[in-house]
Amino acid sequence: MTDQNSFPVSMDPKERELGTTLAPKFDSHGLVTAIAVEAGTGAVLMLAHMDEKALRLTLETAQVHFFSRSRGKIWRKGETSGEVLNVVEMRVDCDQDAILLVVDPAGTGAACHTGRKSCFYRRVVPGKSGFELSTPDQPPLFDPEKVYKS
Amino acid sequence: MTDQNSFPVSMDPKERELGTTLAPKFDSHGLVTAIAVEAGTGAVLMLAHMDEKALRLTLETAQVHFFSRSRGKIWRKGETSGEVLNVVEMRVDCDQDAILLVVDPAGTGAACHTGRKSCFYRRVVPGKSGFELSTPDQPPLFDPEKVYKS
Repeated sequence: MTDQNSFPVSMDPKERELGTTLAPKFDSHGLVTAIAVEAGTGAVLMLAHMDEKALRLTLETAQVHFFSRSRGKIWRKGETSGEVLNVVEMRVDCDQDAILLVVDPAGTGAACHTGRKSCFYRRVVPGKSGFELSTPDQPPLFDPEKVYKS
Repeated sequence: MTDQNSFPVSMDPKERELGTTLAPKFDSHGLVTAIAVEAGTGAVLMLAHMDEKALRLTLETAQVHFFSRSRGKIWRKGETSGEVLNVVEMRVDCDQDAILLVVDPAGTGAACHTGRKSCFYRRVVPGKSGFELSTPDQPPLFDPEKVYKS
């Protein structure tokens, strides 16, 4: 990459781990993984991916942007549903291939497209023949069929 | 996959989202993303990946196993450092391509290979020319040079 505004691509691993330069390590698809947790409670809301542009837009606007792998495009979280995530704090992990977003959810507070607060609404539990999932343990806060009208 | 113990591969998307069948959606590399958070505090400790075997070992032993993308093999978290993560609860997200591990850390409580409690020990902060990282805001709990002797 030659864009002068690009993040550094190659970097000494120790410097990437302990230094003060933001140098995200994008994978072979140009993505890093991002986790959103709710400010205050720390509840894990969702996990998604960011390309370089989504990361820059998130930094510049303080509203979470992701890259949708299924749709192949940038997506401002909440652009359809109104369930915007405002960034309170952003952190990176040791090798800079993961981003932690501490967010203040707008809208009804439902980060999941199913209408639930968190995407992690089912537990893995022992079942009759191996492991299965509990039924969703969070109520929908909005009706996805009304919110995502085609 | 024909192994009778394998997880279901194809499934109606609605059933995968709202049903009670554990049907992890492994990516083209055969991996799902896993986040470990500390039981009690909810602190995000680390993010890594699991293949089907690592997921099964985690379920069967209640100790976190990952698949190391760099080393190309299964890795029992803490096998070298002693920083084992005991599973208190496992959750899946809506489309079952991400796993949330609620864990009780053993050892010194340092999940990160740098010796820190969490891998997310740096904040993204405004700098002189764009964004940079804060210096690590967590002390190392162990000395990685002593723990990871070659």
